Amino acid sequence: MSYSQEIRGQEDRDLSAVFARAAEPVNLLKAQRQENTLYGFLRPLDHAEDLPAIECLAATIRYGRNDVVVLGTGGSSLGAHALVALKKNRFSHNNQYPRIHFPDNLGPDSMDALLSELDLAHTHFLIISKSGGTAETLAQMMACLAAVKEMLERVQNGRQLSEYFTVIVEPGDNILRRFANRWRLPIFDHAKDIGGRYSALSVVGLLPSAIAGLDIRETRRGARDVLMNCLETENIEDIPAAIGAATIYHCAEEGMNINVLMPYECRLDMLARWHQQLWSESVGKAGKGTTPVRALGPVDQHSQLQLYLDGPNDKFFTFITTNMNGKGPVIDDKLASDPELGYMSGRTIGDLVAAEARATMEALSRHNKPVRQIKLERLNEYSMGALIMHFMLETIIGAHLFDVNAFDQPAVEEGKVLTRQYMEWGRRMH
Amino acid sequence: MSYSQEIRGQEDRDLSAVFARAAEPVNLLKAQRQENTLYGFLRPLDHAEDLPAIECLAATIRYGRNDVVVLGTGGSSLGAHALVALKKNRFSHNNQYPRIHFPDNLGPDSMDALLSELDLAHTHFLIISKSGGTAETLAQMMACLAAVKEMLERVQNGRQLSEYFTVIVEPGDNILRRFANRWRLPIFDHAKDIGGRYSALSVVGLLPSAIAGLDIRETRRGARDVLMNCLETENIEDIPAAIGAATIYHCAEEGMNINVLMPYECRLDMLARWHQQLWSESVGKAGKGTTPVRALGPVDQHSQLQLYLDGPNDKFFTFITTNMNGKGPVIDDKLASDPELGYMSGRTIGDLVAAEARATMEALSRHNKPVRQIKLERLNEYSMGALIMHFMLETIIGAHLFDVNAFDQPAVEEGKVLTRQYMEWGRRMH
Repeated sequence: MSYSQEIRGQEDRDLSAVFARAAEPVNLLKAQRQENTLYGFLRPLDHAEDLPAIECLAATIRYGRNDVVVLGTGGSSLGAHALVALKKNRFSHNNQYPRIHFPDNLGPDSMDALLSELDLAHTHFLIISKSGGTAETLAQMMACLAAVKEMLERVQNGRQLSEYFTVIVEPGDNILRRFANRWRLPIFDHAKDIGGRYSALSVVGLLPSAIAGLDIRETRRGARDVLMNCLETENIEDIPAAIGAATIYHCAEEGMNINVLMPYECRLDMLARWHQQLWSESVGKAGKGTTPVRALGPVDQHSQLQLYLDGPNDKFFTFITTNMNGKGPVIDDKLASDPELGYMSGRTIGDLVAAEARATMEALSRHNKPVRQIKLERLNEYSMGALIMHFMLETIIGAHLFDVNAFDQPAVEEGKVLTRQYMEWGRRMH
Repeated sequence: MSYSQEIRGQEDRDLSAVFARAAEPVNLLKAQRQENTLYGFLRPLDHAEDLPAIECLAATIRYGRNDVVVLGTGGSSLGAHALVALKKNRFSHNNQYPRIHFPDNLGPDSMDALLSELDLAHTHFLIISKSGGTAETLAQMMACLAAVKEMLERVQNGRQLSEYFTVIVEPGDNILRRFANRWRLPIFDHAKDIGGRYSALSVVGLLPSAIAGLDIRETRRGARDVLMNCLETENIEDIPAAIGAATIYHCAEEGMNINVLMPYECRLDMLARWHQQLWSESVGKAGKGTTPVRALGPVDQHSQLQLYLDGPNDKFFTFITTNMNGKGPVIDDKLASDPELGYMSGRTIGDLVAAEARATMEALSRHNKPVRQIKLERLNEYSMGALIMHFMLETIIGAHLFDVNAFDQPAVEEGKVLTRQYMEWGRRMH
């Protein structure tokens, strides 16, 4: 596999009862595989039939475009954003691939600011909403449609509105689909049986990845290898996702209601945000669950480590590290001639970050905090696919241990109803 | 004052004992003011003598520059970043002010990527470290110095290395000061008695703000008004920072060990990150404290709200809202002609975000979660200064309630020592 996992601080604990329960959802998955009834988001892993269409659509969309704007909220953008972030540090406008923007937070001026900086004639908008009814996405889409219409009337380049938009929405009657039909925007189906937060490995996450020039076959392959390892391993204690879920559950029972996910790599910052949603919405219900917190190394050593080491013992830590030794610029020994800088001189920036990650994990262990390290040999499409599948499996097993449904989100409807009410009251007052 | 605060879900609780204890640090501040011995970070608020020098330095630095890179870690960059984010949505390269970059996370390729995108001949580097020994900042500085040296040798524009760098570091002998002296880089003193996480209203936060074109006198004025209100209010229960600290402490005693700070405004996202450090490092020690979590509205309604509403009852929520009604583009009633979009039609994006914030707070209250709303009349330099002072006072009062020292960070030294050890071992192995 493309990663290894090690957990410290749990050696003295007997987790056998938890492992026995963790085996239940895994055995269910194994049975579902035999019966060909795997969950929607796991099914495409058995084949790659959908990939050529995604790659073809990506090539069409990016042709002649400098920028692609993904309009999606929550599950409709976080997975894609986490995947596309792989390109972040190597990316520039001179690249052969367009820049991808994720204006995922609605605000009265943010969309205007983005639109005014884009060359609209060379921009494409990808609108993603499973239900087709997400208020923020619809509001942003209307602002973008108005801007493109205005641009087309002004420049008269002979192009159609429909060349600037692609819609991803589930089949059936819904607001976004009606809107797309009315304006003749091309529509790509969102699978009905894949929930937003489990959609990263479907068209939702893979189309933006392919537009950005990432190898989506590798992403799928990494995910598939992790899934198959889970489905084909006999001993539950040999499945990393089960070990992770069992440990988190056990720690939660002992009062550790916070899970910190701290990658030591800028490009994994968005993965931690994706994971935060995945776990929160799947496991946080019926008064149960734990709260995921994202941190980023090494910078958060300077903002959170005091609390982590010496604050309440209420956290389970997961570090993700990549193989950084020897990477990056060498610290010039002429510049670092100061005796107190001797420890850096001649080493690389990657050496420094790797030493910091190791030191932080060691310090936490010495303070008796439970620490998990997920080590990636390489950070690439393959390992991103593997990580995403690892965390989806861990979440499903975790939800089973907490005895909640991993796939619903019963509580959020109330907020949506209230929002509509307040908007209606505001309308009447105008 | 420029903000108001309302807390729901605490009406039935008797907080008088907590308030009595919260009065102690406030009375200490009042006495210190009489004796002219206020903490370093509060002292400059009584006058504005340092501002002309900061403004003058800012004008010199930004002259002819397109970009300014702030190299600082933790407290040396978060306050400035939070303040400069005020400009985020109105900002563009055509502006009269330079873009400000905060590459605060070290990585083997991130600095290279930034340097390759900058026009180095029109860039200035601001290097900030109170102690002068922060490994990440020193490593980044050496990479930037090497790049500028190389550029100067190539373009031969007759300029000196010293025109590209400004250093902020405390007086006395330290690595960064020795380095700056050796390369003749201009140095501006970091006050010895202002700790990094309390430095946002000193030169550390105000110089980048002034370079970005913000009115730092207004920032100071907002902060001063909040401080004076605290020092001149007789009844402790009329001081917002004391109410906040007392409520957080009381909730923590009842098992709410997580504080969520959720602004409904993109430009306050960095303020939440600054606050996360301030509270974590100040209050998280000796097994005590609570864990601050940042969220952002409305997007995190789609990622965290399920957990917040229906997960464990372990959170105290703070929302920051601005007066958004009527702001931003109007949602076109021709585009929003779908009957199910009726609630949006003719309203503004700001109306929608305001309704969402109100609905989220209402839903949490209905689920018996403690909710605080901090309302800003306007989001500008004045209210940012006010918020920063509010949270600094709340942190000092909170630390007193938790019976810890708000100003030290005893636990992090261990990680630094280990980092050096691991680097030395790596060197010997090379």
